[in-house]
Amino acid sequence: MSSNYLNFRNSIPWLILLLEALFIIQFYFLFSTPNHSYLLLNLYPGFQDVNHMVVFGFGFFLMVLRRYGFSSTGFNLLILVLGVQCSVLVSYFTEANEGILMSVAKAVLSMTAVVISTGAVLGKTNPVQLVVMTLVELVAFCVSRWINRTYMEAEEDLSLMHVHLFGAYFGLAVAFCFPEPSPRLDKNRSTPKSDLFSVLGCVFLWVFWPSFTSLLAESKARAVLNTYFALAVSAVTAFMLSALTTKDGKFRMTHIHSAILAGGVTISYTAQTISHPWIAMILGLLGSVITILGSHCLQRCLNPPLKIHDTLGVHFTFGLPAVLGALAKVVLFVIEQRTNSNSLDYLVLMHIGAFCQTISFALVTGFITGFILNTKLLKIIPVSKYFDDQFYWEVSF
Amino acid sequence: MSSNYLNFRNSIPWLILLLEALFIIQFYFLFSTPNHSYLLLNLYPGFQDVNHMVVFGFGFFLMVLRRYGFSSTGFNLLILVLGVQCSVLVSYFTEANEGILMSVAKAVLSMTAVVISTGAVLGKTNPVQLVVMTLVELVAFCVSRWINRTYMEAEEDLSLMHVHLFGAYFGLAVAFCFPEPSPRLDKNRSTPKSDLFSVLGCVFLWVFWPSFTSLLAESKARAVLNTYFALAVSAVTAFMLSALTTKDGKFRMTHIHSAILAGGVTISYTAQTISHPWIAMILGLLGSVITILGSHCLQRCLNPPLKIHDTLGVHFTFGLPAVLGALAKVVLFVIEQRTNSNSLDYLVLMHIGAFCQTISFALVTGFITGFILNTKLLKIIPVSKYFDDQFYWEVSF
Amino acid sequence: MSSNYLNFRNSIPWLILLLEALFIIQFYFLFSTPNHSYLLLNLYPGFQDVNHMVVFGFGFFLMVLRRYGFSSTGFNLLILVLGVQCSVLVSYFTEANEGILMSVAKAVLSMTAVVISTGAVLGKTNPVQLVVMTLVELVAFCVSRWINRTYMEAEEDLSLMHVHLFGAYFGLAVAFCFPEPSPRLDKNRSTPKSDLFSVLGCVFLWVFWPSFTSLLAESKARAVLNTYFALAVSAVTAFMLSALTTKDGKFRMTHIHSAILAGGVTISYTAQTISHPWIAMILGLLGSVITILGSHCLQRCLNPPLKIHDTLGVHFTFGLPAVLGALAKVVLFVIEQRTNSNSLDYLVLMHIGAFCQTISFALVTGFITGFILNTKLLKIIPVSKYFDDQFYWEVSF
Repeated sequence: MSSNYLNFRNSIPWLILLLEALFIIQFYFLFSTPNHSYLLLNLYPGFQDVNHMVVFGFGFFLMVLRRYGFSSTGFNLLILVLGVQCSVLVSYFTEANEGILMSVAKAVLSMTAVVISTGAVLGKTNPVQLVVMTLVELVAFCVSRWINRTYMEAEEDLSLMHVHLFGAYFGLAVAFCFPEPSPRLDKNRSTPKSDLFSVLGCVFLWVFWPSFTSLLAESKARAVLNTYFALAVSAVTAFMLSALTTKDGKFRMTHIHSAILAGGVTISYTAQTISHPWIAMILGLLGSVITILGSHCLQRCLNPPLKIHDTLGVHFTFGLPAVLGALAKVVLFVIEQRTNSNSLDYLVLMHIGAFCQTISFALVTGFITGFILNTKLLKIIPVSKYFDDQFYWEVSF
Repeated sequence: MSSNYLNFRNSIPWLILLLEALFIIQFYFLFSTPNHSYLLLNLYPGFQDVNHMVVFGFGFFLMVLRRYGFSSTGFNLLILVLGVQCSVLVSYFTEANEGILMSVAKAVLSMTAVVISTGAVLGKTNPVQLVVMTLVELVAFCVSRWINRTYMEAEEDLSLMHVHLFGAYFGLAVAFCFPEPSPRLDKNRSTPKSDLFSVLGCVFLWVFWPSFTSLLAESKARAVLNTYFALAVSAVTAFMLSALTTKDGKFRMTHIHSAILAGGVTISYTAQTISHPWIAMILGLLGSVITILGSHCLQRCLNPPLKIHDTLGVHFTFGLPAVLGALAKVVLFVIEQRTNSNSLDYLVLMHIGAFCQTISFALVTGFITGFILNTKLLKIIPVSKYFDDQFYWEVSF
Repeated sequence: MSSNYLNFRNSIPWLILLLEALFIIQFYFLFSTPNHSYLLLNLYPGFQDVNHMVVFGFGFFLMVLRRYGFSSTGFNLLILVLGVQCSVLVSYFTEANEGILMSVAKAVLSMTAVVISTGAVLGKTNPVQLVVMTLVELVAFCVSRWINRTYMEAEEDLSLMHVHLFGAYFGLAVAFCFPEPSPRLDKNRSTPKSDLFSVLGCVFLWVFWPSFTSLLAESKARAVLNTYFALAVSAVTAFMLSALTTKDGKFRMTHIHSAILAGGVTISYTAQTISHPWIAMILGLLGSVITILGSHCLQRCLNPPLKIHDTLGVHFTFGLPAVLGALAKVVLFVIEQRTNSNSLDYLVLMHIGAFCQTISFALVTGFITGFILNTKLLKIIPVSKYFDDQFYWEVSF
């Protein structure tokens, strides 16, 4: 291990301490008036579900690499708690005052973007890089949502549903700036044991996804049901396509792993507006199709020439279904309101504008973040140390 | 691997696709009127618990075999999502219109029967057999419930509580038609690691069982409490009897695994009518006793001559406690209403009739299903490939 | 294995049976009047969370030892269900009649004390010792709470929050009476696999902790939020201090494991009275600091001379943060009500009195229990058999 990194590593705790001290001081100044306080208790069960999903579900969902279990769950928790505090502070300035429990709930939802982005660079970043990425991405996502709300007339809950899109493309842009690991590296694969833990997290996400899409929805029951049906069909399709696309018709766990959630991602924009379950089912089917086909095309055709190494495959797991979902939102909207064409054009343009703004903002800020993370100041892990708990943790056997 | 099975396997995805397409088309025609919609949001937390329990809890509860972890959770999810869609469609015809969320909740409850049945043939069926079994069993269970409601005057929520009884005996009858695996087979056993995952699922089921029995109950608080006490006592009894029945007084994990849930199965018929906790506790104790004694007697005396190989032991884990519970229902009913003997006889007869109808319907349809599954069209796994993930999944080490 | 222990082990099931029979008989006599019944259904979601946390979360949290996984979860469930029944019976005599679901909820909360205590003697006790310890500790805790309520004017929910303090010091006192295991013993360590299961339980506890502190709180929303912020900051601090205190700045999983919960323990006394999040954050930070510093000082300086072997480190995981929390309660109270000094002194004295009474009562009853457990009648495990599932379970590889 280079003494270079050792010196660097000794500075990690002080950086975290500094950050946490800053947070506490800002909380002291901002949330000191007692009327700023504690409302919306009926939000708690939904918040609890989403919190459980992000901390536990994603923490174990990320645990695919054979020697990276501690870092997957551990760092996920670390960036989550830092991110939520940061996001609550940022939202104090950009959003209307709506009670601090609501702010925390939205902060946890926003953190999904960061957790998705970490999936793209899983195993390639040191904790400081992760923390910097978390803070930059949260602020960027908050700004992107503010632009959407202010200039694109997007509603609050819909602007939050861009979380998958933003997270996936931000993560991809960051991953683009990292050097590719050696393709013969053994650590960059899963074992049946790590796969089981990962399936555990994945099933958790699957079960709690309806709580995710319905947390801020006005017609909660509808959002829950549409999400459930979309998830169900995408699970069926995942098995079907996995058997179709592998040699001799076996199932592949990574397909199941990414495609059973595709329906949930696809439906997130439209869960509360779809009025017939069969539309949700079709969307779930298409989401799963685009994920598995995407995983084949991207991993063979797009990633190698562009030299993107997307560890968890967030592009096809979250990115493509989110694009599909945004598209479906527009199509369904047009079909529903075919009559008054004048205002229709305007609203459709707004939707498309919000979508393009989000994706391009994510890519641009992602590239910038990627370059920052790979400056000499932060980037000191050699490629040979990728995907290894022992570089960060005391591991005893 | 025979080219025979390879050809067969290539047809799996098309069968699933066909099925899913049929479901979507039927949803299109049946659930298109907007008034058919979305009610009963206060059902969501209970539904979430039961969904969590069936997807996650049973998924990991089934993970006892050392080389069958992927299939246990994976196929459990696959049949669950197919089954729920099928069940929602069937219930459209057999039940009163009560909102689609209620239909989904009942569908998830009904799926418990199928999940229990799969426990009896765990590791011995290919995915197509599982899917066929799921669909046949769901329709059979729906018909059985319809008979109970129409001719036996059973209440809706009680007819659903036959789910354990139906699932166990249907599964047994199906398992009877499968050839026995070689007793020297090593794969047909657990490892400490697979046992830990299985305990994880089992504890999940234990915790969520009160939500299961109280989901449709009118006096929810009573159902929750009685179930809790029955589960508590059956957990205690499980440890006690496990130490009594093994050599040199050690505990056996499979005993704990099956017997701590016995109280929950036993109480499911009577959870909302029992008025004193001690009765629930006695039932929990008896349920656990019958499970552990049953596991000894059945595995030594009944299964070998009948050549039944019941992988997970669903007969004593779910079957016997459910029989006990149905009996207890009658006894408690008689004790409670000793006065007016005329109507009493009639109601008792109805109870016993519903019980006999359910169990015989399960056995008959189970046998038929078992024979269908073992026709040349569907049954192509050789016995030597039982209990092995590698036959269905790409497994990398 | 000594025939001595064999004879003893054969008596285990009969002891458990006797106990359970006693419980059922008492339930028969005490809870037979129907008006004693079933209230407070809106308590169910919170109760479910806490039950889940204690059964599942602690069951897996305890799973740190490499060869003690079955016993960790299994015995945790056994003592939990026995303890809850015992506690419900005891509370019948010591508390006002408030419905049996409330009694069960409080019983589950009280059981946290026992579960914490078992952490101190994890792997060193046989099941009978555990059961005896559970019953004695529950009665002792109930008496201690009764003294606090009657003589120290403590409120009901606050008296229950002494659960961490009581559990930790009772466990320590019991552990003091057990002979130390050989320091070269290999079984007394974790593997990456057991650590992953333990992290799984730990993350569960982290997620559900707000439900724990808010279960009986009057201002639930405030309790939830303060607990969340305290937990968040203590998770951040845990990572920071872990990197600071280990050689070459790596993270150590046992640090994270114990310190991320410290904020929750610290805040438990004050969660519903703190009016600004930053105070909760400071408390979370201090709780985490005291845990990690404590783990260094205690394990090096205090435990070796006193010959205390605290398997899970409950002293610094739960004991020290609870002491800090009690102190913080007094300090915050004094700051808040600086005006009327007369009644202030009295109330502060009462708080300090309740704290001292709890800790000394825990230590004294813990020592007595420890001596009882180590009499010839109960203590027959040789030190060489510590930390080993195979001594109690049939383990097949």
